[in-house]
Amino acid sequence: MTSSRLPKVADYAVPGFTAGAVAADIKGKGTGAGSAQPRLDLALIHCPGGASVAGVFTRNRMAAAPVLLCRERLAGGSARAVLVNSGCANCMTGKQGRRDAELLSRELAALLHAPAARVFPASTGVIGARLPVERMRAALPALAASLSPGGMEPLSRAIMTTDTRPKAAAAAVALSGGPVRLLGVAKGSGMIAPHMATMLSFVLTDAAVPAPALQRLLKAAVAGTFNAVTIDGDTSTNDTLLLLASGAGPALRGPADRAAFAAGLRQVCLALAEELAADGEGATRVARVEVAGARSRAEAERVARAVGNSPLVKTALAAGDPNWGRIACAAGYAGVPFDPARFSLSIGEVAVVRRGEPVPGYDEAAAARVMAGERFTLRVSLGDGPGAFALLASDFTEEYVRINKDYRT
Amino acid sequence: MTSSRLPKVADYAVPGFTAGAVAADIKGKGTGAGSAQPRLDLALIHCPGGASVAGVFTRNRMAAAPVLLCRERLAGGSARAVLVNSGCANCMTGKQGRRDAELLSRELAALLHAPAARVFPASTGVIGARLPVERMRAALPALAASLSPGGMEPLSRAIMTTDTRPKAAAAAVALSGGPVRLLGVAKGSGMIAPHMATMLSFVLTDAAVPAPALQRLLKAAVAGTFNAVTIDGDTSTNDTLLLLASGAGPALRGPADRAAFAAGLRQVCLALAEELAADGEGATRVARVEVAGARSRAEAERVARAVGNSPLVKTALAAGDPNWGRIACAAGYAGVPFDPARFSLSIGEVAVVRRGEPVPGYDEAAAARVMAGERFTLRVSLGDGPGAFALLASDFTEEYVRINKDYRT
Repeated sequence: MTSSRLPKVADYAVPGFTAGAVAADIKGKGTGAGSAQPRLDLALIHCPGGASVAGVFTRNRMAAAPVLLCRERLAGGSARAVLVNSGCANCMTGKQGRRDAELLSRELAALLHAPAARVFPASTGVIGARLPVERMRAALPALAASLSPGGMEPLSRAIMTTDTRPKAAAAAVALSGGPVRLLGVAKGSGMIAPHMATMLSFVLTDAAVPAPALQRLLKAAVAGTFNAVTIDGDTSTNDTLLLLASGAGPALRGPADRAAFAAGLRQVCLALAEELAADGEGATRVARVEVAGARSRAEAERVARAVGNSPLVKTALAAGDPNWGRIACAAGYAGVPFDPARFSLSIGEVAVVRRGEPVPGYDEAAAARVMAGERFTLRVSLGDGPGAFALLASDFTEEYVRINKDYRT
Repeated sequence: MTSSRLPKVADYAVPGFTAGAVAADIKGKGTGAGSAQPRLDLALIHCPGGASVAGVFTRNRMAAAPVLLCRERLAGGSARAVLVNSGCANCMTGKQGRRDAELLSRELAALLHAPAARVFPASTGVIGARLPVERMRAALPALAASLSPGGMEPLSRAIMTTDTRPKAAAAAVALSGGPVRLLGVAKGSGMIAPHMATMLSFVLTDAAVPAPALQRLLKAAVAGTFNAVTIDGDTSTNDTLLLLASGAGPALRGPADRAAFAAGLRQVCLALAEELAADGEGATRVARVEVAGARSRAEAERVARAVGNSPLVKTALAAGDPNWGRIACAAGYAGVPFDPARFSLSIGEVAVVRRGEPVPGYDEAAAARVMAGERFTLRVSLGDGPGAFALLASDFTEEYVRINKDYRT
């Protein structure tokens, strides 16, 4: 898909932060035409004055070593640096994997004159392989030298794996004490079905927000954004979303400031989440699966996930085929005890099933026109309950299979 | 895949039953070379003397009209006929769909001089379309005229949709009163993740078994066979497995007879289930995912299903690539609270992870040789608990996507 939401604001700078990236030979050279030079794969966010930090992480039991370290270090509430690599997930690497991440944190901390406990590591790439620690250590001085105010742009490229393009979003928020910025970057196009975060995403702001408030704001923003995207139903071992606030700008004073900041944060998270869905491996279409009328939000979410993760629904999306029986079928096996006689379904604005009965005069050609688009909505209603949930689901193409037969996650 | 388990016993006959099939223009003409003649799509099993009957059905909330009728009629415990069609699922057809199935049952019952309540309907094919009732009514006399002792063979072809070959299995069981036969047929190659049965399967025996005992035997046989196969995680709206016992042969007398019969029934169900997995849409490989050491069988099953349904695992299977990180990742997001430090994994006999640590000297080339085969085992251990489950999972290929973009389920 060819949409893009790169920041409208001219550059990637957020007061209080610098960032940079280098090629450390972690993911090797590219294989495409013109890509025989080393690829960026090691990146750094630096906050010399310290930042308050919030984070949400994968719920996968096999959480990678960097995720475990981040969780521990989050208790301190303060960050000086984020060290991130692509090409190796440092997951299923046992005790050695943890020692590797700790060593790199210590070395970087020494270079930046910061406590190691304030370095937050993040990794993405192949599971089960050790980090190439020596090559990464050797690259740290060059990485520190690459830091610049606009360095989130090369960072957004350095964290890519099977992504076809970098993903970033920005927002400006007017607080009572003056304007602040929000800038987020993300990567992820396979093994994506975040339950607490996406694979890797970093959001920076110059607002002054203490860590506990930042954590509450982040959790609220994630629920309907990152946690409402599915590409393949596979929840990664490395999902990490960090939000850092440098405090170089004004603080949140009162409910109006909190609401404005929350709205800006949600906007950035939503733009990044939509970018993730649109750049799903091999994806050509994104359906917004809206489920309403359920007894609870949780039940609506189960139905939305069953529909959005169904291979048969996803291949129908790929075909642009309004094969709605597959949608009804997936809703039916979600494990939610709704009454089929109250089930309704529409494709875009085209009504297909109303309260268990086929809609007379259902216009299949009109439904096919809806599904020929790159983005459309499938609406499911289970009855008259208050529960609702919306999920962004990408399609399944031959290309998805090809990518994942060839690529080592 | 090119395996086959067609009955070794010379013919498809089971004393007490006849069967037959005709082309009723429900699924239209074939499109392949040499297939321009009408295809068999309406079939009948007849038991003139009556048979005791057991059945298990889909758990999908959107159960098709024929499934709802079968469930009601099962209460009577006795069957005279099974009327089955491919090409149309008669699902999501509202009240009219039920009237259609009832009408066809009545017409067939009149033709066979049987009570309509002893006719069991089954349908498979497109969801959301009405049965072509007039064409089916018109074909009933020819269908009745097609009945013959060996008619389960044409029936096994008439029920195919995207199946590449018919599926049948037979067993001979020596009871104390003499030998009995078991013959089963099945169809299904997409929308397969049976929770109580497969898409359509019919098993006949001449043993004399009352309906309640037959139901218990069937439920026990299904647990580790049909319910342990996954192709795409999509549980159909039409899953139906019927077991009919004509009583033309001897009865089960005592525990030894019951055990012998149960073993024969399990053998037939397992052979059919393995055929389903091997003929999964586009499938080239089948992995047996064995999970052990869980706290309970249910937890082992959740992990096995997460692994067996993961698109990333399935594409690794298609590539024959021992990309074991994806297996560990899928186990990790299954929602089962195991301790990663007790997780172990092997591919065939090749140990990969032992108690959370990579196995020193892990031989990736040997693992690749295992996964180059058409059938192999992935063994996961979660700890020291008693819970275990084994699942047959087929792979995901470009061909699966192609079939399901082109075909209307």
